[in-house]
Amino acid sequence: MGDLLGVAVLGAGHMGADHIRRLDKVVSGARVAAVADPDTDRAGRAVAGIDGASVHSEVEAALDAPGVRAVLIASPGEAHEEALLAAFARGLPVLCEKPMVPGSAGALRVVEAEARLGRRLAQIGFMRRYDAEYRRLKAVLDEGRLGRVLMLHCVHRNVSSPPGFSSAMLIESSVAHEIDAARWLLGQELTAVTVVRPRPSGRAPEGLLDPQFVLFETGGGALVDVEVFVNCGFGYQVRCEAVGETGSARIGEGHGMVLTSAGAAREEVAQDYLVRFADAYDREVQSWVDATRRGRVTGPSAWDGYAASAVAEAGVRAQESGGRVTVELAPRPALYA
Amino acid sequence: MGDLLGVAVLGAGHMGADHIRRLDKVVSGARVAAVADPDTDRAGRAVAGIDGASVHSEVEAALDAPGVRAVLIASPGEAHEEALLAAFARGLPVLCEKPMVPGSAGALRVVEAEARLGRRLAQIGFMRRYDAEYRRLKAVLDEGRLGRVLMLHCVHRNVSSPPGFSSAMLIESSVAHEIDAARWLLGQELTAVTVVRPRPSGRAPEGLLDPQFVLFETGGGALVDVEVFVNCGFGYQVRCEAVGETGSARIGEGHGMVLTSAGAAREEVAQDYLVRFADAYDREVQSWVDATRRGRVTGPSAWDGYAASAVAEAGVRAQESGGRVTVELAPRPALYA
Amino acid sequence: MGDLLGVAVLGAGHMGADHIRRLDKVVSGARVAAVADPDTDRAGRAVAGIDGASVHSEVEAALDAPGVRAVLIASPGEAHEEALLAAFARGLPVLCEKPMVPGSAGALRVVEAEARLGRRLAQIGFMRRYDAEYRRLKAVLDEGRLGRVLMLHCVHRNVSSPPGFSSAMLIESSVAHEIDAARWLLGQELTAVTVVRPRPSGRAPEGLLDPQFVLFETGGGALVDVEVFVNCGFGYQVRCEAVGETGSARIGEGHGMVLTSAGAAREEVAQDYLVRFADAYDREVQSWVDATRRGRVTGPSAWDGYAASAVAEAGVRAQESGGRVTVELAPRPALYA
Amino acid sequence: MGDLLGVAVLGAGHMGADHIRRLDKVVSGARVAAVADPDTDRAGRAVAGIDGASVHSEVEAALDAPGVRAVLIASPGEAHEEALLAAFARGLPVLCEKPMVPGSAGALRVVEAEARLGRRLAQIGFMRRYDAEYRRLKAVLDEGRLGRVLMLHCVHRNVSSPPGFSSAMLIESSVAHEIDAARWLLGQELTAVTVVRPRPSGRAPEGLLDPQFVLFETGGGALVDVEVFVNCGFGYQVRCEAVGETGSARIGEGHGMVLTSAGAAREEVAQDYLVRFADAYDREVQSWVDATRRGRVTGPSAWDGYAASAVAEAGVRAQESGGRVTVELAPRPALYA
Repeated sequence: MGDLLGVAVLGAGHMGADHIRRLDKVVSGARVAAVADPDTDRAGRAVAGIDGASVHSEVEAALDAPGVRAVLIASPGEAHEEALLAAFARGLPVLCEKPMVPGSAGALRVVEAEARLGRRLAQIGFMRRYDAEYRRLKAVLDEGRLGRVLMLHCVHRNVSSPPGFSSAMLIESSVAHEIDAARWLLGQELTAVTVVRPRPSGRAPEGLLDPQFVLFETGGGALVDVEVFVNCGFGYQVRCEAVGETGSARIGEGHGMVLTSAGAAREEVAQDYLVRFADAYDREVQSWVDATRRGRVTGPSAWDGYAASAVAEAGVRAQESGGRVTVELAPRPALYA
Repeated sequence: MGDLLGVAVLGAGHMGADHIRRLDKVVSGARVAAVADPDTDRAGRAVAGIDGASVHSEVEAALDAPGVRAVLIASPGEAHEEALLAAFARGLPVLCEKPMVPGSAGALRVVEAEARLGRRLAQIGFMRRYDAEYRRLKAVLDEGRLGRVLMLHCVHRNVSSPPGFSSAMLIESSVAHEIDAARWLLGQELTAVTVVRPRPSGRAPEGLLDPQFVLFETGGGALVDVEVFVNCGFGYQVRCEAVGETGSARIGEGHGMVLTSAGAAREEVAQDYLVRFADAYDREVQSWVDATRRGRVTGPSAWDGYAASAVAEAGVRAQESGGRVTVELAPRPALYA
Repeated sequence: MGDLLGVAVLGAGHMGADHIRRLDKVVSGARVAAVADPDTDRAGRAVAGIDGASVHSEVEAALDAPGVRAVLIASPGEAHEEALLAAFARGLPVLCEKPMVPGSAGALRVVEAEARLGRRLAQIGFMRRYDAEYRRLKAVLDEGRLGRVLMLHCVHRNVSSPPGFSSAMLIESSVAHEIDAARWLLGQELTAVTVVRPRPSGRAPEGLLDPQFVLFETGGGALVDVEVFVNCGFGYQVRCEAVGETGSARIGEGHGMVLTSAGAAREEVAQDYLVRFADAYDREVQSWVDATRRGRVTGPSAWDGYAASAVAEAGVRAQESGGRVTVELAPRPALYA
Repeated sequence: MGDLLGVAVLGAGHMGADHIRRLDKVVSGARVAAVADPDTDRAGRAVAGIDGASVHSEVEAALDAPGVRAVLIASPGEAHEEALLAAFARGLPVLCEKPMVPGSAGALRVVEAEARLGRRLAQIGFMRRYDAEYRRLKAVLDEGRLGRVLMLHCVHRNVSSPPGFSSAMLIESSVAHEIDAARWLLGQELTAVTVVRPRPSGRAPEGLLDPQFVLFETGGGALVDVEVFVNCGFGYQVRCEAVGETGSARIGEGHGMVLTSAGAAREEVAQDYLVRFADAYDREVQSWVDATRRGRVTGPSAWDGYAASAVAEAGVRAQESGGRVTVELAPRPALYA
């Protein structure tokens, strides 16, 4: 197995277990070499049947386990900063699930640490950049087929929110995807944010302001609006329309089978992001494994992770204040030019 | 009311009553001057509240009623030949519902009678020629945007068939529309027909061979296939795809509102032809009234009515024989050149 | 012609001439009895070939012409107030193109005048209420199939703006349609408005801030956002998505023929509102003629015209100030309860 | 590398090279251990940079190379029979590209050889069974959501045919996919076939009868019609509509991004089957690798390969005769019950 990239996976929860399965069964060129989780039973179950995968309760032990040549961080967000710095200290390439670090202060420390290293080690898990539809949209924009982009209209809907989901998390966890996608699609930073909202849906849990409508301004003078609705009840929908000077392009409009019966033609709506973006996750991890084996780091950078945190932070302040909040970013290190 | 076109409507059943409403309430420039139906009570109900509309049990009496300047035939098909000849004898322009005459022998007699008159008086009620989608398709074909047309794929589905609907009527009554539409779209006669069919649906009434699959060949070497399914259960669907040398064009693919709830995105499917083709009927009758007031006859001709009967007749023979049946048409009179 | 509703059409420009054609050729039960336009040559051309239609340079002369029993106002907006009051003075039913009166002060005077009459005479030309798709959407909302509506996402795009089109007119003339549609769909008044905008398109004429993004709040706690883009270059698009507690419904998503050639499947996009809403105009005028002949007034009221003016006025202030502007409406007279 | 499934790939042409790339870069759990091609230069280029992959001019040498535990046959169809028998002789599991063997006589010899072994070793490369849309359609049919299936309407279009493509190959190579898909979707054998065709497209190469329209009957009384058009010029389109007693389901209707500009809304059409079915090929090979490593054989069997050959053979006879040709299958060995 010497030639395969040995990966230490940190976190064996829902997402971690899914990445372990992906590294073991789907992706070419990698293997799970170690897993760390405070709940070692859970970690053990996640690697059951995988040869050569050691189980650890501590991050450092996993990083130092035999055969580990790269790290995939899928632990809770609060644990990311320490894990990233530990990986940097060992020179290990990292794929880190989003949010890179919750809060822009911690995120900036990671950026500064990597900038001090003078070379990139981290890729952040913004998987939409690997989705086929988003990539086609990006290509259309980059080719200039719509002229300069004036507006992005985005919709982000979930069937229902998990227990404990807060109003701030609508921005930090859900809209975070649109924050990165907008920055990537437009090649511009987001400079200000306003949050408005209707009277909450009767289906939203007590205290959760759901849905919300978020309006971003960009450095290049574009507008980005996002409907985020995490208890819409009917499905998982992610749509994006780019409106440019000479045309518009829309993705996420529906797919697949049209079923006609009893007076209606129906198309299924995915119920879950792991269904809608299954291929994107596969491509993301495959792309990371391929680049890592060639000694390269590609994909979304720590700077992207930091910018997303800073914009989300401004969004939460805008949500609380009801007004327009500008986004202040630290100077961009040359490493990320 | 002198300026309005006074119309005698023959037949006050479902279709006749709908045309009376249309002439009275929807169409500009016409009025109902007389109505004939053996059931004069029914005729009276159909013109209740319409000033100046006389009621008759006999066709001739209606044609000779004061103010009658044109005729709309909506009686049962067996009564059409006599009504058309009576209108011709009086020099009255006619809009005749399909089938012009059931059976090609009678249809040919009508053609010959009009040819002897030396001028056109009859327009046949193939209303699809007035449907916005069919007209767009026709325009695309006439502009040559698909190159030469190689195939037409057609679907014709009804929720359920009325009592007494026979296997032959699938061809004579339902596929009759595709026969005319294909002749019109392609500008070619249909020269042969084959009928195949799957094991009938369990929802078809005892003895009705439903669905069927009908395959026409044309004088120009194109193929036209038609799925006809009159007990499909879920809606009224009429689709047509023209496949040409350089592209394809499809109509009837669905419209209007997309309703998303509970895991599916839905579009309504019309349940009835009077819904799907409501505008086509309106335009057909308006177009006939406008032309008639200018002293012209446009639209599908008696020859089109005859050709449709002859092709349908061959279709029924093909249905019975299981083999391929060629269509023999009488020579085309110069009037219809 | 005694039975037909004789209509005086005020204004013989683009829209007036189209309504004259509609009354003459399309709609049942009406005729053009008089036309008024300062440019009597233009008025004469618009009624060429129409029997019994007199031509006038002055509004009063047209209203008093023989056979006039109702009025259709299609003159420039500044002339509407005087024309409405003149029709009210004569007890004539009116169909008045939008805007009813530019500026809420004048609009309120019309409301008050009609309220003093104690009966409705005016219907305002918000034709989207007669569009088949909008009516289906309205029905879905009224049946409660989406639960309470939380958001309306609207798009309103034109190929290009006419000469002299100002930034204020994006609100007063274009978004005016969404203002009425939102009030009608939701059955709620709009209570506040915010206007944001990206850097204008390079295709927008010098000085025109195009596109803009308008955000309304409603009395019932819903949000309505509108992209208005009058130089989008590619077509006339009007879309509306209602997002409710249990589902969403979208209209304006495209129709008709799918044309496949050279690597793409294409659907035509209408280039003009007279194409997209042709049927809505026909139904609107037919509905007005039918109601008027029965001595009734239905459809959008002078109050709807006033409310639209007041909201648009607030929108223009919001556009200028960059902030949120609340809408203040006068008390609603009992006539419009 | 001991744990990875070592695969010998036979054939290093277009398809073979693509499978080598897939085994090396995409699929988890396998590696290319050997490649055989008479053109050893081509074979060498296909495995450049892949550790441990030996190059051979002869099939037997590749099968006997160190580390080979399974075989993927991607050589020309005429070489398949010998290669399959050689793999069977060594007890090696095989994934064999379609056609399994051209001609039903040879295909039957393979079936009989495997039946004599008494265990399955061969999986045939009908990759549509691994396409997400086809699988969803299959699930809908198996759940009985459409009732009994009455008809399948299929479309199979290519931009252009490769040099040397013959009229018979439209059936043997292109329609072969629909033959297998229909058998799999319906769980029924095809019992008769008729081929009709329009006058060929002017874009078809001299002598090629393109398009054709193929009509299959099934053992359960269903009809399957297929438009095959390999020089349609505009794209690669594979559509399938299943019409059942209670509804219809359609796949292949288009996907992804809607691009609106200059009067039209456009969706891209894939130009190539390697694009449209890229994921299906990946899933097919991954599924084969996974099953093989567990010592199992799943997927389409040699019997499926034989049945497809027999039906295609009847199709070519029907094409030549212009009539209906029944399909005669040998008795089905118990191994494939």
